[in-house]
Amino acid sequence: MNTLKVLSLFIGLAFLVTVANGFEYAPGVPGNPPPNASPNKSFLLVADERDVVIGDGLVFRAFTFNGTSPGPLIVVEEGDVVEIVVKNLGKYTHGLSIHAANTQTSKFVGNIAPNGEGRLLFKADFPGVYMYHCAPGGHGILTHTLAGMYGMVVVEPKKGSYLLERQLGREPDIRVYLVQHEVYMNGRDFFDGKPAYVMFNGYVFRYLEEPIKARPGDYVRFYFLNVGPSLTASFHAVGGIWEYVYQGGNPNNVAVGLQTVTVGPTDSYVIEWRVPAEGNFLLVTHAFGTQAIKGAVGVISASADAERTSVVLPNGPALAPPASVKRMLSPFEPTQDEVKTYFPGEKVVIQIVGNSFYPKIARVPVGSQVTWVNEDVLSIGSGEITGQHNIAVVQGPVSLTSPLLKNAEQFTLKIEKEGLYQYICGIHPYMKGEISAYQASGVGGLGILGGLSFTVDLTVVSVFLGGLGALALLVFVGEKSAKRHEK
Amino acid sequence: MNTLKVLSLFIGLAFLVTVANGFEYAPGVPGNPPPNASPNKSFLLVADERDVVIGDGLVFRAFTFNGTSPGPLIVVEEGDVVEIVVKNLGKYTHGLSIHAANTQTSKFVGNIAPNGEGRLLFKADFPGVYMYHCAPGGHGILTHTLAGMYGMVVVEPKKGSYLLERQLGREPDIRVYLVQHEVYMNGRDFFDGKPAYVMFNGYVFRYLEEPIKARPGDYVRFYFLNVGPSLTASFHAVGGIWEYVYQGGNPNNVAVGLQTVTVGPTDSYVIEWRVPAEGNFLLVTHAFGTQAIKGAVGVISASADAERTSVVLPNGPALAPPASVKRMLSPFEPTQDEVKTYFPGEKVVIQIVGNSFYPKIARVPVGSQVTWVNEDVLSIGSGEITGQHNIAVVQGPVSLTSPLLKNAEQFTLKIEKEGLYQYICGIHPYMKGEISAYQASGVGGLGILGGLSFTVDLTVVSVFLGGLGALALLVFVGEKSAKRHEK
Amino acid sequence: MNTLKVLSLFIGLAFLVTVANGFEYAPGVPGNPPPNASPNKSFLLVADERDVVIGDGLVFRAFTFNGTSPGPLIVVEEGDVVEIVVKNLGKYTHGLSIHAANTQTSKFVGNIAPNGEGRLLFKADFPGVYMYHCAPGGHGILTHTLAGMYGMVVVEPKKGSYLLERQLGREPDIRVYLVQHEVYMNGRDFFDGKPAYVMFNGYVFRYLEEPIKARPGDYVRFYFLNVGPSLTASFHAVGGIWEYVYQGGNPNNVAVGLQTVTVGPTDSYVIEWRVPAEGNFLLVTHAFGTQAIKGAVGVISASADAERTSVVLPNGPALAPPASVKRMLSPFEPTQDEVKTYFPGEKVVIQIVGNSFYPKIARVPVGSQVTWVNEDVLSIGSGEITGQHNIAVVQGPVSLTSPLLKNAEQFTLKIEKEGLYQYICGIHPYMKGEISAYQASGVGGLGILGGLSFTVDLTVVSVFLGGLGALALLVFVGEKSAKRHEK
Repeated sequence: MNTLKVLSLFIGLAFLVTVANGFEYAPGVPGNPPPNASPNKSFLLVADERDVVIGDGLVFRAFTFNGTSPGPLIVVEEGDVVEIVVKNLGKYTHGLSIHAANTQTSKFVGNIAPNGEGRLLFKADFPGVYMYHCAPGGHGILTHTLAGMYGMVVVEPKKGSYLLERQLGREPDIRVYLVQHEVYMNGRDFFDGKPAYVMFNGYVFRYLEEPIKARPGDYVRFYFLNVGPSLTASFHAVGGIWEYVYQGGNPNNVAVGLQTVTVGPTDSYVIEWRVPAEGNFLLVTHAFGTQAIKGAVGVISASADAERTSVVLPNGPALAPPASVKRMLSPFEPTQDEVKTYFPGEKVVIQIVGNSFYPKIARVPVGSQVTWVNEDVLSIGSGEITGQHNIAVVQGPVSLTSPLLKNAEQFTLKIEKEGLYQYICGIHPYMKGEISAYQASGVGGLGILGGLSFTVDLTVVSVFLGGLGALALLVFVGEKSAKRHEK
Repeated sequence: MNTLKVLSLFIGLAFLVTVANGFEYAPGVPGNPPPNASPNKSFLLVADERDVVIGDGLVFRAFTFNGTSPGPLIVVEEGDVVEIVVKNLGKYTHGLSIHAANTQTSKFVGNIAPNGEGRLLFKADFPGVYMYHCAPGGHGILTHTLAGMYGMVVVEPKKGSYLLERQLGREPDIRVYLVQHEVYMNGRDFFDGKPAYVMFNGYVFRYLEEPIKARPGDYVRFYFLNVGPSLTASFHAVGGIWEYVYQGGNPNNVAVGLQTVTVGPTDSYVIEWRVPAEGNFLLVTHAFGTQAIKGAVGVISASADAERTSVVLPNGPALAPPASVKRMLSPFEPTQDEVKTYFPGEKVVIQIVGNSFYPKIARVPVGSQVTWVNEDVLSIGSGEITGQHNIAVVQGPVSLTSPLLKNAEQFTLKIEKEGLYQYICGIHPYMKGEISAYQASGVGGLGILGGLSFTVDLTVVSVFLGGLGALALLVFVGEKSAKRHEK
Repeated sequence: MNTLKVLSLFIGLAFLVTVANGFEYAPGVPGNPPPNASPNKSFLLVADERDVVIGDGLVFRAFTFNGTSPGPLIVVEEGDVVEIVVKNLGKYTHGLSIHAANTQTSKFVGNIAPNGEGRLLFKADFPGVYMYHCAPGGHGILTHTLAGMYGMVVVEPKKGSYLLERQLGREPDIRVYLVQHEVYMNGRDFFDGKPAYVMFNGYVFRYLEEPIKARPGDYVRFYFLNVGPSLTASFHAVGGIWEYVYQGGNPNNVAVGLQTVTVGPTDSYVIEWRVPAEGNFLLVTHAFGTQAIKGAVGVISASADAERTSVVLPNGPALAPPASVKRMLSPFEPTQDEVKTYFPGEKVVIQIVGNSFYPKIARVPVGSQVTWVNEDVLSIGSGEITGQHNIAVVQGPVSLTSPLLKNAEQFTLKIEKEGLYQYICGIHPYMKGEISAYQASGVGGLGILGGLSFTVDLTVVSVFLGGLGALALLVFVGEKSAKRHEK
């Protein structure tokens, strides 16, 4: 399915790394690159934005590493000096946080402009199973992870470190690298922990469609990583009890005989298990309602003469877009599914939340006062780093740009004309929303009386909206709050 | 309260088990039944559907094992060869997943038709506290667990394996088997992790109403299992610090001195603790908002002369239905609480989600185009195994059956006549929904102008609905997506 | 920022404690105070209700200990005999649950009336990082914790118990006490696990605004406590791998080399880590959507000549209220943000949930039948302890008090007059709600036809509402359910 090979990630080692010159690493702390070290492993991660296929007719408008979500598996060995090169071929600022590195990372790969490149060197001193993800800084770290930019890094410990390997005197017959991850329809659902789909390795029910083939008695090693971004997983096999589990994948952190492992976001486990018999063994996140039913189930299918699936890579599949799209999952943009209709007299509040507008499409009666409220909290910095937003109407009956809004600040617009208002956030231009304004009179055929629609009980509404003005009035009620540092 | 005794679960051992003949178990893997073994413990689980009482006036329309939710406790000892017989006396396909078994299970008890029976043999090689639950296969595993089909299995380790037992040189004075579980109003809440009630052992605040009686200094052993199906529990006692905790209940996985244990779905703990003094010690899941406040609190009440509650069984209570029902919790059917009213011009989308319709009852104006969208994801198989659904109107102004819908596929019906449309899913006939169509003109007394109701801003709506047709038109927009395997 | 010093919490030891007289503690159980012991540490916690500032222009109408949320850090040493005095200077009943105590607590500090005082003695036999929180009993434990009454207790083990301290032969350069906690807009969100903000130590993004200063190589010890009340945290540093982690803070429960710790509500960890290099290391709860993006991010900023932040206290900041409030977070009262408009023909159901009304402000057409349903489950006791509620209209067109409602019981009121109905729960008078009744005819200018509004499809509605009566009719449909104990 995925034609990339792990080895293809290796790039030339000709780049001798010198970033350490003039930079202070604390001596004796594991994880820092040795002085003047050359890397003995090097990997390239290319940041970009593109659609990926996550199910039959399901397309996720993602941000990606190397074109897939999850991005490519990176495997190194304990003690390796590892170089990671990050290139940004996308339209927006990207970056990298790589959890296998115990060293300064944000300075080197934390914020990379389009067409830019960053380079990080670390020593893989901590064996285990780690997450990497985009990290343009601040608020952007969280929203780019929402957008699908993550993957797995494994630091393999010395041979024989894991107990079942030592006990059996052989390496695993099957290695299953499994990334569990969530896809959301919009930022509101992201805040609420309500994913539309939850997957293993980039496709709903991927290993039900393509069972993992094994033979009875096979020694299977799982590298299980929950990248979240938010939910807590619970990994179990129907008909299986995990023989040994290692928290974080570190051989020192061993537990025995568990029916499941509870795995928070970015937590991970190495699991050793033997296939006890022929037949099917369902792999499942045992959070049935919030996760399994949305796609996080696979199967190991065992028979005596099976042609083993010796390696299962966590890289998302690289599939051509379907001829017919059943559903487009685009957290930051409207899709056809996300319309909310408002009626005369109803308060219209559009949340700005997780770099998206909610509802993405609001049908409102002409005459409505539409209020945007910024629910994103982080106000530092600018660009991808910040959670500040504005509203810029780019197409429609009016043309306007609101001031920048910090958290809990509002902007109100009176909708005077029928028609479609398409707007974006000028700071994060992939954030898109629509106001579809209709003549309220049309609803009940009450044109001549329509003017009365807003006369009812404005007491409550006006407290909220603050002072209102004339046609296409812009009311910016932010920047009114007291300075904080009265310490 | 519950008149079933654990021992009553034992059934005759006359059934010599021969399923192993001709079936390949991997030699040397713990958990498989030894060749030609006879079981030394045997249990009967009877699957059925019935209402259970979960609180004062609260009735849960459940699927059950042995008539209660949770089902009966099963206790065996490490090394036992255990037989489980599953009989299906219900109307629907059922099955069993039993986490104490590290062997092939789905082939033997994974899918049992009504009036059918299955039989499983395993060796209890892994001591611990385990979940069992219904497993008819695929999608049905998840929804039957939602419906209440689960319980606890304990594999007791050799005597003296637990530290406090060894230290005190005696067995526990009190054994508390505690299953935490969630009940949902509908499939939407199941997907969102929003239970209406969360309980210990089948009844809200059960052990506040019936405190567990102890004496100061009593050695208490908790067998705590979170069956979920989705949330992560956190088990604590007010006034208590757990002396020893064993993850999964395995004596090897010991931690000491914890105020709580974090317990994902199907995770479990054995906990050893002594009652420090007289007075009340509240037992609580410390997830206060999502769990404790909904019923997951009990109390140990200690006094010098208390008549000890030496065993607390996790079996749900077997209570007669109340004379007056305050609330019926029926995830798959409408109840009186679940009506949503739509107005002219508003998009009517009914989700098919977790084997239920959401909203279950939709009040819509005549002339509405009602669109069902299947949010269930798993499309393999048929019957209980599948997440495919259709809409079959069984009573009302029209009679029709929609095509089968896979995930994200839609079916649209124009409602032309006033009245009540009662419909089901033909694949899962316990799934029930209603459309209550009213004359929109009645709302505002605008009969003569009603025809205008749908003329407003149909641009947006029609993008979503696709091509619409005439009276009682059926638009099936599924089956249009590209075949996937373009690898 | 916070001018309270930990030492200022110590109060005179003159109070010789005699509560043990005549009270039975089990001999030999750790945690109980020794007979006739005098405390060698004593702390005062003052319960009160007050507004606290949690962000720029964000005010949380909280219940507090010592005026902040979280309340003050309490640090003792293993083996200390500790006295805690709780004074209630608030308007409502309060109390204390302190997780460092393995002894009877609820009898001594479990329920303290306004102007009352309680006193607890325990021996700190279990080293670790613990939560304390308000505990007036039953339902109130959960809602007062929601309201912000919590903090951290640390029982320091003997010196040299933690591995990195032993290995380096010195104490930490920096101690970071970190409480993660959630703030909710209302009880519905509390039930659903949807906080508006998630913080470290009482202020959103506090340690982004005030970075923790360190030098490369500094030995940092984190005392991380998730007080919830509901979500599961995952604590990570960008550029960091935790060298040693201790579950619960107990030196016996060690794991090594973890990228994160998964921390359920009231779970805790001690974490040892050295700052590997200069530059910024982001501290983050890796549940990005439900937690980090709402405020749970900080930073350690390292440079060679940094003036170290040697201690970070978990106490919430004590800030003056802002001149201008952007948002008031008041879980139990209406704020201007929380209005829902109902239209003629729509069912009006107001949930009573988590000691709040939802929606807090309902705009309903005159003629509506408004039904309150109690979703709070616990029905024992009275006052703060109970989850029973009533509706008492204290201002508006009518004056009335409903009967007490238990879970799932309803009260229905027909709204006959225009105007604003302000009501409270008579049991928990800080619970406030509003009905704003408008003339439905005004919405569409349809006064003369308004009488028809409620004639449509009352079948469904009336099933739910039960028998309705005349003007301002009170229908109490509770107390009709069968007695339960038919065992």
